[in-house]
Amino acid sequence: MRLKIAVLAGDGIGPEVTREATNVLRAVAELGGHDFTFVDGLIGGIAITETGSPLPTATLDAALDSDAVLLGAVGDNKFNSLTPDKRPEAGLLQIRQALGGFANLRPSIAYKALSASSPLRPEVTENVDILFVRELLGGLYFGTPRSWNKETNEAVNTMRYTRDEVVRVARVAFELAGKRRKKVTSVDKANVLEVSQLWRATVTEVAKDYPDVTLEHQLVDSMAMHIMNIPRNFDVVLTENLFGDILSDEAGVITGSLGMLPSATIGGAVNLYEPVHGSAPDIAGTGKANPLGAILTAAMILRYSANLEQDARAIEQAVHRVLDAGYRTADIARGHMSGQQTVTTQEMGKRVHQAL
Amino acid sequence: MRLKIAVLAGDGIGPEVTREATNVLRAVAELGGHDFTFVDGLIGGIAITETGSPLPTATLDAALDSDAVLLGAVGDNKFNSLTPDKRPEAGLLQIRQALGGFANLRPSIAYKALSASSPLRPEVTENVDILFVRELLGGLYFGTPRSWNKETNEAVNTMRYTRDEVVRVARVAFELAGKRRKKVTSVDKANVLEVSQLWRATVTEVAKDYPDVTLEHQLVDSMAMHIMNIPRNFDVVLTENLFGDILSDEAGVITGSLGMLPSATIGGAVNLYEPVHGSAPDIAGTGKANPLGAILTAAMILRYSANLEQDARAIEQAVHRVLDAGYRTADIARGHMSGQQTVTTQEMGKRVHQAL
Ligand SMILES: CC(C)[C@H](C(=O)O)[C@@H](O)C(=O)O
Ligand SMILES: CC(C)[C@H](C(=O)O)[C@@H](O)C(=O)O
Repeated sequence: MRLKIAVLAGDGIGPEVTREATNVLRAVAELGGHDFTFVDGLIGGIAITETGSPLPTATLDAALDSDAVLLGAVGDNKFNSLTPDKRPEAGLLQIRQALGGFANLRPSIAYKALSASSPLRPEVTENVDILFVRELLGGLYFGTPRSWNKETNEAVNTMRYTRDEVVRVARVAFELAGKRRKKVTSVDKANVLEVSQLWRATVTEVAKDYPDVTLEHQLVDSMAMHIMNIPRNFDVVLTENLFGDILSDEAGVITGSLGMLPSATIGGAVNLYEPVHGSAPDIAGTGKANPLGAILTAAMILRYSANLEQDARAIEQAVHRVLDAGYRTADIARGHMSGQQTVTTQEMGKRVHQAL
Repeated sequence: MRLKIAVLAGDGIGPEVTREATNVLRAVAELGGHDFTFVDGLIGGIAITETGSPLPTATLDAALDSDAVLLGAVGDNKFNSLTPDKRPEAGLLQIRQALGGFANLRPSIAYKALSASSPLRPEVTENVDILFVRELLGGLYFGTPRSWNKETNEAVNTMRYTRDEVVRVARVAFELAGKRRKKVTSVDKANVLEVSQLWRATVTEVAKDYPDVTLEHQLVDSMAMHIMNIPRNFDVVLTENLFGDILSDEAGVITGSLGMLPSATIGGAVNLYEPVHGSAPDIAGTGKANPLGAILTAAMILRYSANLEQDARAIEQAVHRVLDAGYRTADIARGHMSGQQTVTTQEMGKRVHQAL
C-alpha cells in the first residue's frame, strides 16, 4: 500500500502532536510493509509569518497532490486583532473549502481508563460511542454577505444552506449509522430558523432511503443538554457546521479531554484529517500536549483513505493499552489515581509506538 | 405595593406551572400586604387555535398595560410543519420584540439537595452560581433577509448586530457582575465570524467603564466544554442570542433539570418573565411538570419589577427548604435517595406555598 500524506503541522502544539502521529504511521508502514511518504507544508499563523498568506499556493498544491492531508492545528494569539479573512483560521477554512470534504466525522468515545478525567459521572459516560457528522462547508462559516462595517458599526454573517448540501451530508450520516447502531439524531433550530426547516425537511426525505435507520430530530438547545444527561442515547449525530462545532467540543467532556479527539473530513477531492483540539499556544513546547488526538486521527487516515481497517484498529487498540497501563498526559491526568504516570507528548507517542 | 401581572400561560405544561407560580405570588401578596392582580392572555399554539394568531392584539395590549408579563411556555407539535412565522414560537419572538427587553437573565445554580440529579460529579457542581446574560432581540433570531425558497431549494438566515445592541446588553452584564463576583465571560466565535469580532471589540470597550470587573473572552465551542469541566470558574456569562440559547440549556445540567430554571428579560417597556423550559407536550396534564422554574421566575418578578428583594428571597428560600425536605417532581427524582418523595406539579406548588 502506497500513501502520500501532506503534513500541515500549523501552529502552537500542532507540530509536536503531528510528529507523534507521523511516527506512529511510520511504525505501521514498517510493520505492514506499506510505503507511506510525508510531504510538509505551511498553514496558519506560521504560514502568514513566513509567506504572508495563511494558505500558501505551495501548500494547497501539495495537499491536492496527496492521498490524504494531516493537519495539526492553527491559531495564534498574535493575530487576534485581525479580521477573520486575515487570521490563521482563514487558512484552515480555505483548505477545507479547497479540498471539498463536506462531512466532518468526529467520534466521541468514553474510554474506561479515562472515566476519572470526565466531569460526568462514570455511570453516565459508560460505553458511550457517538459519531458526529458535522457539515463542514456551509452555514455561517462561509455564507455571504458577511462584513463588519466600521462606519455604520454593524456586522453581518449569513447562514445559508441548499438542499443538495444537506442531502449529501445526510447520506453520509445514514450510511455510517447503517454500519453502527442504526440511529441518526439530526440537530437543528427548526422552531426559529428557516435554514433549519430546510435542514429538517431534507433530512426527513433522505431518511426514506434508509428504512433500517431510525431518525430523530432534536433542537440544538435541548441537544446540548441531552448529550450530557443521556449520551448513551446517541449513535450518529448529524449537524450543520456551527452546531457541530459547539456540540462536538461539548461532547469532548465525555472522553475527558479535547486532546483525545480525532476527526476526518470526507467527501471531497482529498480527505482532510485533523485532531479536534486547537493550537493551545499556552502549552506549546512544554511537552504537555496530548498527541493521542493526532494519533487517533492518523488511524482515521488508514480507515478512510487507505482502507486499512486492521491497521487503524491496531493504532486504536494501542492507545487503549497505553491508557490502561496508566500513562497520562497532563490534560487527562486529573484523576490522580495510583498506578498512573504523567508523561510528555513525546513519551506518550513512544508508548503507543511500542504498544503497536 | 401594587402590581399588575399579565399571565400568558401558553401551551403544554405552561398553564399548570404558571398556576403554581401565581398561587405563590398570591401567598406573598397576602403575607406582605401587597396588591397583585393577574390578567390572563392567550399566546402560542392555543392562541393560534382560538384566534388564528400566535400573539393576538388583545394579549399584546394587556402585556403592554401591565407591570410585568409572566409567560408559561409555547410550542405544540401540531404546528411542526409550519414555517417559523406561523408557529407558536412566533408569538414568543413577537412579544419579546414588542416588549423590548434585550437582556435575558438566566441564573444557573447548583442546589446541594439536587446534586444527585445532575450527570456531573457533585464536586464539579458544588457551589456553582452562574448568571447568563443572553442578548434576546438580535442575531439569527431576528436578522433579515431570512427565507426558505422552495423553488431554488435554498434557505437563508442572517446574524446581525449593531454596536449599540451589544453595548446595552454588555452594560447589563457588567452592572450585574459588579454586584456579584466581578467577572464577565463574553462568548463569541471571533475566529470565524465578523459579527463576533464586532461583539468582542464592543464588549472590550464597554469593559473599560467597569475597571473593578474582570473580562474574559471565550470561543463558543470551548465554552461549551469549559462550562461542564469547570463551571465554578464562571460568574456572569454574556452571550449573543443563539449562543445563549444553547449554553444556558446546557448549563441546566448543573442544576439537574431545565424544570428548575427561571429567567427574566429586562431593559424594555415591560419586563418579561419565563421559565427556561419548553412546553413539554409529552408530559402536559400528567402532573409531572416541575413548577419550580415558574415559581423561581415569579421570584424574579418581585426582584426586578417590584424591588421586593426580601420577598424574592423568601420564595427562593422556600424552594430550598422544600428540596431539602426531599420533595421532588419526576424530572429531579433521579437520585432515588431515601427520604425523598415524588410529588405532582400541584403538590410541589403547595409545598412551596406552605414553606413560605
Ligand atoms: C479553528 C476553528 C476555525 C475550527 C472551527 O470552528 O471549525 C475549530 O474550532 C474546529 O472545530 O475545527
Ligand atoms: C422556544 C424558543 C423560541 C426559545 C428560544 O430559542 O429563545 C427557547 O428555546 C428559549 O430558550 O427561550
